[in-house]
Amino acid sequence: MAAATTPIGRHTWVIAEGYIPPDDGPRDRRFASHETACVLNCGERDAQLRLTLYFADREPVGPYRLTVPARRTCHLRFNDLTDPEPVPHDSDYASVIESDVPVVVQHTRLDSRREALALLSTMAYPAQ
Amino acid sequence: MAAATTPIGRHTWVIAEGYIPPDDGPRDRRFASHETACVLNCGERDAQLRLTLYFADREPVGPYRLTVPARRTCHLRFNDLTDPEPVPHDSDYASVIESDVPVVVQHTRLDSRREALALLSTMAYPAQ
Amino acid sequence: MAAATTPIGRHTWVIAEGYIPPDDGPRDRRFASHETACVLNCGERDAQLRLTLYFADREPVGPYRLTVPARRTCHLRFNDLTDPEPVPHDSDYASVIESDVPVVVQHTRLDSRREALALLSTMAYPAQ
Amino acid sequence: MAAATTPIGRHTWVIAEGYIPPDDGPRDRRFASHETACVLNCGERDAQLRLTLYFADREPVGPYRLTVPARRTCHLRFNDLTDPEPVPHDSDYASVIESDVPVVVQHTRLDSRREALALLSTMAYPAQ
Repeated sequence: MAAATTPIGRHTWVIAEGYIPPDDGPRDRRFASHETACVLNCGERDAQLRLTLYFADREPVGPYRLTVPARRTCHLRFNDLTDPEPVPHDSDYASVIESDVPVVVQHTRLDSRREALALLSTMAYPAQ
Repeated sequence: MAAATTPIGRHTWVIAEGYIPPDDGPRDRRFASHETACVLNCGERDAQLRLTLYFADREPVGPYRLTVPARRTCHLRFNDLTDPEPVPHDSDYASVIESDVPVVVQHTRLDSRREALALLSTMAYPAQ
Repeated sequence: MAAATTPIGRHTWVIAEGYIPPDDGPRDRRFASHETACVLNCGERDAQLRLTLYFADREPVGPYRLTVPARRTCHLRFNDLTDPEPVPHDSDYASVIESDVPVVVQHTRLDSRREALALLSTMAYPAQ
Repeated sequence: MAAATTPIGRHTWVIAEGYIPPDDGPRDRRFASHETACVLNCGERDAQLRLTLYFADREPVGPYRLTVPARRTCHLRFNDLTDPEPVPHDSDYASVIESDVPVVVQHTRLDSRREALALLSTMAYPAQ
């Protein structure tokens, strides 16, 4: 029924922009400021992801590991990452996402520091 | 007169990010929160589209079917999809759009949950 | 002095999403709702552009003609187009931009219908 | 530990859209209106960058020079550029970023002219 049974996408994606505002927003999870990497795995095999974070003034951290099941999407909040360590707030970072099967990655941020919401989104850079 | 008489674009496009806010916004259709896939078919043949939706925790749904006539654009609101089933609100999803002729797809969201509007837009990922 | 003396970019660009809000915003040009196609010509020859607009329910309109001089950028407001006809407000459209020399095109919208500004931007789709 | 030890990205990137709002926003650096080029160098060699700015009505300015160390990201604020000259506010511009090693560039703007924040982001155009 689902049309796309062959894998679609790339193995390596880059998000050069990353920033989680300081944690002073609303408590409602839907409105809390957050950064998201939206990953779609429309293939028939589970995707094993390795996420590496890069910073302005220290060595990269990672890999963070994540599985996106076959025929599923995962809207990964960077705020939720804990292992090997949480992502610092109010600090610039960038990320590289590597997958063992082709996936598609889109980057979104919701900023709720002010009463009004601000949104951004862009496709990640498909490296390989 | 129109310059582009040869088809432009790709046959398969991916939008990895999808989210329709809960239905508590204004009643005016122009200001209601919505997700849109903007499709341009600048070729001379009608485009038959198949849209498949992917979710975080259940099997894909689709295909939704849609025709974009030759030399026309269609700003498809995911909120308006009904067959085979409506798109759930307040739930993460992703979409794959397949066309029998080349088209171009751009993704846009208007979020009007707060008094201020928030907008995002990005080109979909051109898979094939 | 300027580094990029060889032409950079493509000859054909597509913006699948277009919408100018109804004309009820502020009178200050900087804050008026507008759609912009930002064109960069970093080559040594002037770029002759042909812009064609596509609609949901009628034949395409164009070409609109525009020159972007060598080593210059032009932030073209769709609101300002008049020949062969103005772009309708509160109506969906899409656009194809063709250039005789390589250029780069980025799409931006400012929506000022509410007190708060909303912004979107994405690279146009590089077709050829 | 970091996965990406081979260089990822391109040598030349274009941001066709550039605009720094007039300097009437908040004094807090985090909330001041700004334009950012987010550069990720995930390779093992420092990246030497040359940035050239293009304008609507005068010759390009540059190169601005910048080093992004190996395995680091740099969120470059155009507002902070001073040599050879500051970037004018309330004026359209575009930029070309050239690097001697592959990098990835993403463009972001925060507009805080109104109480509510407005955000945009898009991957730069990968030219070479």
